[in-house]
Amino acid sequence: MAQAQPRVGRWPRPAANRLLYIEVALPLPEKELISKLRHQSAGKPRLGSVRIGIGDDCAVLRIPAGHEALVTTDFSLEGIHFRRDWDAPEVIGHRCLTRGLSDIAAMGGEPIAAWLSLALPLSVSQKWVDGFMRGLLRLARRFGVQLAGGDTAEALRDIAADIVVLGSVPQGKAVLRSGARPGDRIYVTGALGGSAAAIASLLHSGALARPADYPQHFRPLPRVEVGKRLRGIASAMIDVSDGMSTDLAHLCEESRVGAEINAESIPRARVGRTRREVLREAALHGGDDYELLFTAAKGKRVPFQMAGIPVTEIGEITRKGKIMLMGDGLARELKPLGWEHFTR
Amino acid sequence: MAQAQPRVGRWPRPAANRLLYIEVALPLPEKELISKLRHQSAGKPRLGSVRIGIGDDCAVLRIPAGHEALVTTDFSLEGIHFRRDWDAPEVIGHRCLTRGLSDIAAMGGEPIAAWLSLALPLSVSQKWVDGFMRGLLRLARRFGVQLAGGDTAEALRDIAADIVVLGSVPQGKAVLRSGARPGDRIYVTGALGGSAAAIASLLHSGALARPADYPQHFRPLPRVEVGKRLRGIASAMIDVSDGMSTDLAHLCEESRVGAEINAESIPRARVGRTRREVLREAALHGGDDYELLFTAAKGKRVPFQMAGIPVTEIGEITRKGKIMLMGDGLARELKPLGWEHFTR
Repeated sequence: MAQAQPRVGRWPRPAANRLLYIEVALPLPEKELISKLRHQSAGKPRLGSVRIGIGDDCAVLRIPAGHEALVTTDFSLEGIHFRRDWDAPEVIGHRCLTRGLSDIAAMGGEPIAAWLSLALPLSVSQKWVDGFMRGLLRLARRFGVQLAGGDTAEALRDIAADIVVLGSVPQGKAVLRSGARPGDRIYVTGALGGSAAAIASLLHSGALARPADYPQHFRPLPRVEVGKRLRGIASAMIDVSDGMSTDLAHLCEESRVGAEINAESIPRARVGRTRREVLREAALHGGDDYELLFTAAKGKRVPFQMAGIPVTEIGEITRKGKIMLMGDGLARELKPLGWEHFTR
Repeated sequence: MAQAQPRVGRWPRPAANRLLYIEVALPLPEKELISKLRHQSAGKPRLGSVRIGIGDDCAVLRIPAGHEALVTTDFSLEGIHFRRDWDAPEVIGHRCLTRGLSDIAAMGGEPIAAWLSLALPLSVSQKWVDGFMRGLLRLARRFGVQLAGGDTAEALRDIAADIVVLGSVPQGKAVLRSGARPGDRIYVTGALGGSAAAIASLLHSGALARPADYPQHFRPLPRVEVGKRLRGIASAMIDVSDGMSTDLAHLCEESRVGAEINAESIPRARVGRTRREVLREAALHGGDDYELLFTAAKGKRVPFQMAGIPVTEIGEITRKGKIMLMGDGLARELKPLGWEHFTR
């Protein structure tokens, strides 16, 4: 009850000049917000391993015997990763957690719990926060992931979310970026470029795209089940978050190998009302698809479809450090032109 | 080599209008920054449990057999938790990690690894980032904690850091907030109010305080060793981060008990050139001290000093839900007047 009234912080930390803000839509006081999240997140975790969730200094959880822990953290920042005028809060919350789950999938892991750090300017409405949490928690439930904690804070101007996902994988079975060997075949799940096409459409027309036309942008689904089945099959794996050309470069660098990609075989997403194929450039360099890019030894049987998701062979690992794009009778270097922060 | 030149993100996410910024001091491109962090963080983890650190989709680590995992996340936001004109970057980095380590200490845990998510506006110099990392990594080394990953991103305007710390504790031995029982004695480590006094001094004079005068503000040390020794002694524990009155209220709420605090016995920090005691109000409500507040059963022997840190008895847990401050022959309710976000 005492928490229901806004209170004055008597010993302010070096704080915002709050007069800068239009305080029409104050989010709930922190304790109430946490209490609400705690109530919403009281789901049954799949592995029954979160012993203490929201409400203590740390979450306490058990990693299944014979398993290793996987940990990943990903920002979702307003103006950088999302725009409030482009996407509904549910979509932003959904994508926020997708980023973390996709990293767990890329190791062949099973997600267990998530932590959300959420900084909100005072001008953000509780309705927006509720929508964001609805999108995030719906995806969490779908993957049996418990929201086990996090942090809330006031932000000066822009919304900042940081998602942490902890998962597990049987000891020594994590699929690393560094395991690709010359001769290995390169595969990708699903189709690429759908999210980039949505953003290109938004940038071009300024209008909100119909979610049904761009499912990869509005509701990307992390390939957790495919990732798990690829343990023992994939020699190396990464998720396509920055763009295929950039993520393949990461994988090749960690494995100290090169690659040849067949331009024709790259699966391109179909978008818009007419289900047109995206441009090849979007499939090569577009980010935020959350598909899996992996390699497997030449002789290894890789299904054409896994957990209902198509799997396509797109090239081969080479000894040389370069990544070449083959097609139209030409071989040219494929430069990593996906997303990198702090570059222009 | 290819990463040394800034590159153009060809498929931009909804991004900043970068023309707003004076781009005189571009941080390193993301890959270079990560590479630099990876090099800097190549420390020896105490428990040898981080198998894969920076450079893959997730970190992979082992939790010691018979132990549970502890996870905590804490924001450090520019304008909210720190100001660049008040503190050197080393101090901001140091405090950023302290927040996470202190939560591990408050569970009686042993920290293992940390993940740093760091969003930087383009106007932040690499020198600032280096200083921040120096402060953070020096503290990490001191506590045998490995920087095992994180995320880097461009921020529109303000620096945002989110620290995740993972630790471990023998199964079932975590000291929770919820274990306090009527009759238990209440204790606090060290002295309180030193950080609040530094901020009050800064707000009052506008001048930078001498770090040596306010060690609790400039170089707070998380009470990890004390926390570990309190396993089996403390019935409940929390760290003093929001302010004693607020953190005690959290502990009492989770334990469904009340408390009586003896105003006279609260250890007050000594600050400034003259080592004067801080005001009682600063000790009661001031945040960011990172001391431990804990309870222990009446008969339990609690040392006056643990790992070189004084331990002071300050009150008793009661059955009633209120927290009372006793002193000067009066009993009055102690309202939680520490820091809470989203309140005025």
